[in-house]
Amino acid sequence: MLPKLTFVLGGAASGKSAFAENLIVQTGAPRVYIATAEVYDSEMEAKVQRHKTMRGPNWRSIEAPRDLGPAFTSVSKDEIALLDCATMWLTNHMMGEADIEAQTSDLLHQLATCEGRVVVVSNEVGMGIVPDNAMARRFRDLQGRLNQRLADQSELAVFVVAGQPLVLKGTLP
Amino acid sequence: MLPKLTFVLGGAASGKSAFAENLIVQTGAPRVYIATAEVYDSEMEAKVQRHKTMRGPNWRSIEAPRDLGPAFTSVSKDEIALLDCATMWLTNHMMGEADIEAQTSDLLHQLATCEGRVVVVSNEVGMGIVPDNAMARRFRDLQGRLNQRLADQSELAVFVVAGQPLVLKGTLP
Amino acid sequence: MLPKLTFVLGGAASGKSAFAENLIVQTGAPRVYIATAEVYDSEMEAKVQRHKTMRGPNWRSIEAPRDLGPAFTSVSKDEIALLDCATMWLTNHMMGEADIEAQTSDLLHQLATCEGRVVVVSNEVGMGIVPDNAMARRFRDLQGRLNQRLADQSELAVFVVAGQPLVLKGTLP
Repeated sequence: MLPKLTFVLGGAASGKSAFAENLIVQTGAPRVYIATAEVYDSEMEAKVQRHKTMRGPNWRSIEAPRDLGPAFTSVSKDEIALLDCATMWLTNHMMGEADIEAQTSDLLHQLATCEGRVVVVSNEVGMGIVPDNAMARRFRDLQGRLNQRLADQSELAVFVVAGQPLVLKGTLP
Repeated sequence: MLPKLTFVLGGAASGKSAFAENLIVQTGAPRVYIATAEVYDSEMEAKVQRHKTMRGPNWRSIEAPRDLGPAFTSVSKDEIALLDCATMWLTNHMMGEADIEAQTSDLLHQLATCEGRVVVVSNEVGMGIVPDNAMARRFRDLQGRLNQRLADQSELAVFVVAGQPLVLKGTLP
Repeated sequence: MLPKLTFVLGGAASGKSAFAENLIVQTGAPRVYIATAEVYDSEMEAKVQRHKTMRGPNWRSIEAPRDLGPAFTSVSKDEIALLDCATMWLTNHMMGEADIEAQTSDLLHQLATCEGRVVVVSNEVGMGIVPDNAMARRFRDLQGRLNQRLADQSELAVFVVAGQPLVLKGTLP
């Protein structure tokens, strides 16, 4: 069984989403997919389709690129929700010039008060060379701090590398 | 003793090649070095020379930048081969506009049918900020998926960080 | 109790400095902060201030952007020093066109002969895509090799991911 909050972190194309989906499917609980991606080009469209195929059937699906409140409120205590992913959610809010600190506090509160269990997927983006432009540096800092707070609030945190889990916190079921 | 397939993943200048070489040297088995690098500038030349010096003597050496079939076929059941590295091999195939999916299937099949044991070194490239250009994003995705498949097929997978191993799968000898 | 040398590695905004500070504070020993940052713009100024606030009071503080010799010599055998961070120190020496190999040897010697214990914080920068420009590639290689040598010389080495420790070497107190 999964705890109240599970955090799954990984690099690009690391298999983090598949790992998170598999964690949920193995519980046998009814599952909810909260999609944060906004499809604005064909590259993103292809990625969304590939993930949808990988995920398979039997997911109740909600599109929530920015405001996650209604999505989390709809998750019942028997369900497990997958938020895929915190990085896209953060990107959408940065594009919309939102107050990131306020949005992050809201998200952490929504996760704490959600009746069902939640698995949050996020990207590690801070292990390359310092980016040239200030916006990328700001994104990298905000993402890093968000990841720290999600890991801190979770009971189980996993770093996925080449599809394999390194447990950061807690115990895999 | 090493298993049939060992996968060693790491960042740039992480010590992954030295770690892989040392794994092989410690077995005492006859060793084969399969070099994928194509030397096309002085920066690469210096790197190849530095690695050659680090590696030391007593390696049977094969240059195979793209087609690895003959190299793997030549490895006898008593030998251990080091493929250094999957990242350069992937780069060479991308430059040559090859069908990456077909090439990857070939590689995985060659690894499965090689008579000797093999250690594959590869780069983690997906933990920085999203690259600006589409080609770099495509490379990052292909490398990530290749790393997942190599880790999946291996019996031992190690993530090398600052020269130190984090075991992803299996047990270090 | 901490060993003679502890190495704390992590990505940008990974919580590595906070983790290192906390390791030191928990020992109860008198503490020394060796700051390598040179403040040359408002982004850096904000970062230095944020870290200072996080760190809290009761640190003897030394600014040493390049020559760390006098700083380490001043650390008594009862004190624990935090070098924050090796990445900024390396950057400052690259900007000054120093002989990096000579500087690195000096640093490792200073760490070996310091009377007190030392915790060194450094950045992982080699897990993104290959940078476009040669200077960034050179920095990435030098940082990677420096990290290997620091990890090699340390008795305790930790990779901090989303604020959580993955032990590379030794045992956490």
